[in-house]
Amino acid sequence: METMFDTLLQLPLLQGLAREDFTQILAKVKLSFVKYYSGDVITKAGNPSRQLIYILKGKYATDTTSTDGEFNFIEEWQTPTLLFPQSLFGMNTCYPADCIALEETHVVAISKEDVLNELFNYEIFRINYMNILSNRSQMYLQKLWVFAYGSIEQRFFNLIFSLSEKPIGKKILKINMNHLGKLINTTRLNVSHTLNDLQNQGLINLRRGEIIIPALEEVGTYLRTNSPEFQL
Amino acid sequence: METMFDTLLQLPLLQGLAREDFTQILAKVKLSFVKYYSGDVITKAGNPSRQLIYILKGKYATDTTSTDGEFNFIEEWQTPTLLFPQSLFGMNTCYPADCIALEETHVVAISKEDVLNELFNYEIFRINYMNILSNRSQMYLQKLWVFAYGSIEQRFFNLIFSLSEKPIGKKILKINMNHLGKLINTTRLNVSHTLNDLQNQGLINLRRGEIIIPALEEVGTYLRTNSPEFQL
Repeated sequence: METMFDTLLQLPLLQGLAREDFTQILAKVKLSFVKYYSGDVITKAGNPSRQLIYILKGKYATDTTSTDGEFNFIEEWQTPTLLFPQSLFGMNTCYPADCIALEETHVVAISKEDVLNELFNYEIFRINYMNILSNRSQMYLQKLWVFAYGSIEQRFFNLIFSLSEKPIGKKILKINMNHLGKLINTTRLNVSHTLNDLQNQGLINLRRGEIIIPALEEVGTYLRTNSPEFQL
Repeated sequence: METMFDTLLQLPLLQGLAREDFTQILAKVKLSFVKYYSGDVITKAGNPSRQLIYILKGKYATDTTSTDGEFNFIEEWQTPTLLFPQSLFGMNTCYPADCIALEETHVVAISKEDVLNELFNYEIFRINYMNILSNRSQMYLQKLWVFAYGSIEQRFFNLIFSLSEKPIGKKILKINMNHLGKLINTTRLNVSHTLNDLQNQGLINLRRGEIIIPALEEVGTYLRTNSPEFQL
């Protein structure tokens, strides 16, 4: 239990809380612990977000369907993480993506009511939350100002980086080659040549209808070396 | 003074505060009123954001330089507005754009210290702030998932919408045609044809090195009629 206490105090939003404050919080706030197994759905895109969800242990993926329904982007995550902190407030309090357990995954949830009525009374918690939300706005805004011009390879990776919440780890783009061609403004054939080149260099793996990037950080290193003008 | 009191209570973040709470706040929080004149710089991109800035009255523009320094995007604003609320917290607490008065403009500022130590003690203020920051994240994320494919016209307007904080009002893109061609993946000549067509339809005005969109809401109406598949 001591270990769990310390684990919780290291979580995003709770970091920096005094132990005595946290003991007080634990007496008033309900922590809902849930275990998920490989393939279980933790959140469903479009469902209302009514709680803060921490993924404490395990591995999971977020799966976002594009606005036009034409493709999916899957991002794998290590833990611990805070899931969709920007979905608890604002105009659109729905999850932007499915979240699926990839192995046994331990989750703890705190209701929005407890966040509002209890956690927000602690200055450190509110500043942590403000920082996280502001960071997200800043990160997204910065991405909106990075443009997908340059070679087909650069345009493809620009797309991947702009869709990725984190510039590291495994990503999967489920898309047909015609549509990818449209997105990066080239032909199916050019897309196919470029992706095969990238596969030969070990940066991606091609499956039917799927492009797998095993480690986006390696793509980052590759681009910094080969396309120093690329904006990461 | 009664009028100013009511004006302040209608401002973003302060909306919903009880009059008695606001009277209390006014006793503790310093409001810095400043008047700017046409051409005055209210904020400079890259300077640290250390206060909440409300533009109470007047007209102003934000001017953002692209990450690669190749172009500028200027957006005109009506008042009252809250300037860059996402720049007070997070990793990057610098203004993302210049903000320039276009006529006599009245501004009131509240220091970050007063926000942290006084305003955050009011539940309505913190929830308003959370909602504003969350909305911004949600809006930017949504824009990241809208893609610039389709005709040159659609790609051009997709660029404009993705750079615009608001989908209404006057916008100016300062760019050379070659670079615009790169951004939307076509030739200088194609860009030129498309922009001339749009000018003939009264949607944009072309000046040397500048594309002026007098009213983005009219472009929205035009696209909804002519390109129903366009994602706005």
